[in-house]
Amino acid sequence: MGGYDVVDLIRAKRDGRALSAAEIDWLIPAYTAGQVGDEQMAALAMAIVFRGLDEAELSTWTAAMIATGERMDFSALSRPVVDKHSTGGVGDMITLPLAPIVAACGAAVPQLSGRGLGHTGGTLDKLEAIPGWRAELAPDAMLRLLDEVGAVICAAGPGLAPADKKLYALRDVTGTVESIPLIASSIMSKKIAEGTPALVLDVKTGAGAFMQRRADAEQLAHTMVGLGTAAGVRTVAYVTAMDAPLGRAAGNAVEVAQAVDVLRGGGPSDVVELTLTLARAMLEVAGVDADPADALASGKALEVWNAMIRGQGGDPDAPLPLARHTRVIRAPRSGVLTRLDARSVGVAAWRLGAGRARKEDPVQAAAGVTWTAGVGDRVEAGQPLFTLHTDTPERFARAEEALSSGWQIGEGPAEVGPLVLGRID
Amino acid sequence: MGGYDVVDLIRAKRDGRALSAAEIDWLIPAYTAGQVGDEQMAALAMAIVFRGLDEAELSTWTAAMIATGERMDFSALSRPVVDKHSTGGVGDMITLPLAPIVAACGAAVPQLSGRGLGHTGGTLDKLEAIPGWRAELAPDAMLRLLDEVGAVICAAGPGLAPADKKLYALRDVTGTVESIPLIASSIMSKKIAEGTPALVLDVKTGAGAFMQRRADAEQLAHTMVGLGTAAGVRTVAYVTAMDAPLGRAAGNAVEVAQAVDVLRGGGPSDVVELTLTLARAMLEVAGVDADPADALASGKALEVWNAMIRGQGGDPDAPLPLARHTRVIRAPRSGVLTRLDARSVGVAAWRLGAGRARKEDPVQAAAGVTWTAGVGDRVEAGQPLFTLHTDTPERFARAEEALSSGWQIGEGPAEVGPLVLGRID
Repeated sequence: MGGYDVVDLIRAKRDGRALSAAEIDWLIPAYTAGQVGDEQMAALAMAIVFRGLDEAELSTWTAAMIATGERMDFSALSRPVVDKHSTGGVGDMITLPLAPIVAACGAAVPQLSGRGLGHTGGTLDKLEAIPGWRAELAPDAMLRLLDEVGAVICAAGPGLAPADKKLYALRDVTGTVESIPLIASSIMSKKIAEGTPALVLDVKTGAGAFMQRRADAEQLAHTMVGLGTAAGVRTVAYVTAMDAPLGRAAGNAVEVAQAVDVLRGGGPSDVVELTLTLARAMLEVAGVDADPADALASGKALEVWNAMIRGQGGDPDAPLPLARHTRVIRAPRSGVLTRLDARSVGVAAWRLGAGRARKEDPVQAAAGVTWTAGVGDRVEAGQPLFTLHTDTPERFARAEEALSSGWQIGEGPAEVGPLVLGRID
Repeated sequence: MGGYDVVDLIRAKRDGRALSAAEIDWLIPAYTAGQVGDEQMAALAMAIVFRGLDEAELSTWTAAMIATGERMDFSALSRPVVDKHSTGGVGDMITLPLAPIVAACGAAVPQLSGRGLGHTGGTLDKLEAIPGWRAELAPDAMLRLLDEVGAVICAAGPGLAPADKKLYALRDVTGTVESIPLIASSIMSKKIAEGTPALVLDVKTGAGAFMQRRADAEQLAHTMVGLGTAAGVRTVAYVTAMDAPLGRAAGNAVEVAQAVDVLRGGGPSDVVELTLTLARAMLEVAGVDADPADALASGKALEVWNAMIRGQGGDPDAPLPLARHTRVIRAPRSGVLTRLDARSVGVAAWRLGAGRARKEDPVQAAAGVTWTAGVGDRVEAGQPLFTLHTDTPERFARAEEALSSGWQIGEGPAEVGPLVLGRID
């Protein structure tokens, strides 16, 4: 293969030339091994922000990232395997009810998840609010749970696409996160390395999402579906709205409680709608002919949830932690909630202690925001509108500040757009 | 002043927003002190390659780089001070005869120079071919020489604009050298910190120059004249051609020999023309009314050269080192030299050992290329055309390879454009 001068590669991309497969196949392992410096990869990533990666470059780039690590193999499982990924939103705990519902229908859902950074929470942070529950799971324990219970939500080991791990950390501190090809290859390298034969993507768009413009979300969805399909993964993407937060809770334990409500047949209607939409799509790409609404109504999904939590050391019957301090914000007037901004709610929850600013920060299990009305709902003067939860009351002031400009009560009616904006096959 | 989040600054520049003076005044010392990482500055530099810096940003950026170090002060000298800078070309030893000529006319020329990297040589590397000559000079010795002799060519101390030193090294390995505002601020921060009240710039353009397109060279010239003038330095720039190499030699000792030829009243006509053009401009901005051609004809410039070399430990009468091996390339046919490419000649000299690939590499004093004809000159079949000089004969093959496509003999006549393309005040 031979070596390249990385400065030549950076200059080529900077000047708009596509990188060859041989160049990328050299670059990615060289960066992972430290032969290409962080400062060089940062400059290249910024050039990619401006110049992009074409289809051939992107596919080679993704394959090269996968090749730096191990690949998992679920082919020995008796169930059809299917996975889901969301680009992240406020109150987006959909994975929690979704995995047990799909598993209750007969599929296996190996949900390798991450922790949160910034104003959107991480699935593992949420589940860790459950007493005893542990994110780490050895590969053989994972396979056994998938076969017996059908669903696992656990931490991805360091072995999957280590190049992505290193590159993502670098992009985070160098202002180079916002590149559709780099986002797509980061997500898809992990999902393809994970070995799932079928995948459903939930690409969020709107004020509270990473992709604020719908056109960007659609392009990202197309790019990821293309990468998945090319790698032999049956992939479907949904573009869904994240202007308002999902459901009625943002945080850790408060979102777990909401997930359990859904599994018990209740929960906010938007969460139920999105969960069932994604569940149907997952069963479809997995080739399973079953109605997820039945699994919910019959209580089978809740049984799977209980078994899944127990399988990772958690006690599904133990009470969830409550915050030591709460503060209630009441409706100042009667009317209709005309606006509820996902980002404001997410930042408030984050500031209350539900999220972290740096990777090494801890999160508070009980911290977060809950609310009683969604956009379009009528509220009465004096009724509780938001409850802020935290163990550290000095955090209230800055959380209230974040929340204050994020909602409005008007005369109504309020325009409420559809939650599911489109599907990309 | 407070601190900033550097990621916010990178993202702002990436998205096309100008950085504020307060942001730049925080950034540059923070980078110099290591609080902003190399990977972050590399990403920002690449964003600047794409987005540029506006006039206000550039002026703050340059002042901030100067403020990271010390400033020199020549105000105690009895002579008017004037400096010159060239953006670098092949065979560009103009500084060597120029400084003594201008000094012989009564000005003081403090020429702080650098070493070469890549295919264009460094002035200090050339002078180090003179037995005994040393580039390092203490500040008081420098001032004494400037007062008594009038010219000094020495290494810039580490104290001038250390931010530039660090940033330049980073840009060199991250493909971010090619940014007009970053080039302009790098050059001008050192020149302004040096404390010269008057400055003449030689901005090269053409195949062998850093700025291959004339429009880029003109923009760089304008930018630097603007920065100099705003800082109170009387600044004039010339844009000059670097399609063909200057003179008849590229290397170290071979260029010193050519400089001495010029000071003795001989030398190639293009070198003499450019030297006198720049000398007249330097005397003009220094406010000295004298004809540099007289200083050359009278032998006074040669006397200053001898004193200048002795002042830094060199023996101007000692024979210059000769290469252990030479190889002659003869004209394969009679005709006119219709093309001589500066870059090919520069790369050949570099590969023979005259230049370095990495900062820490040594150079060979005697290595280089000499040639007998310029573009438009008649040559006869069999006459020596090029001589390759090196101490390490295994280098001949790759040097010949670089040179082979760089020249042509045709029927003629050859088009020879002007050397001096324009002046920017």
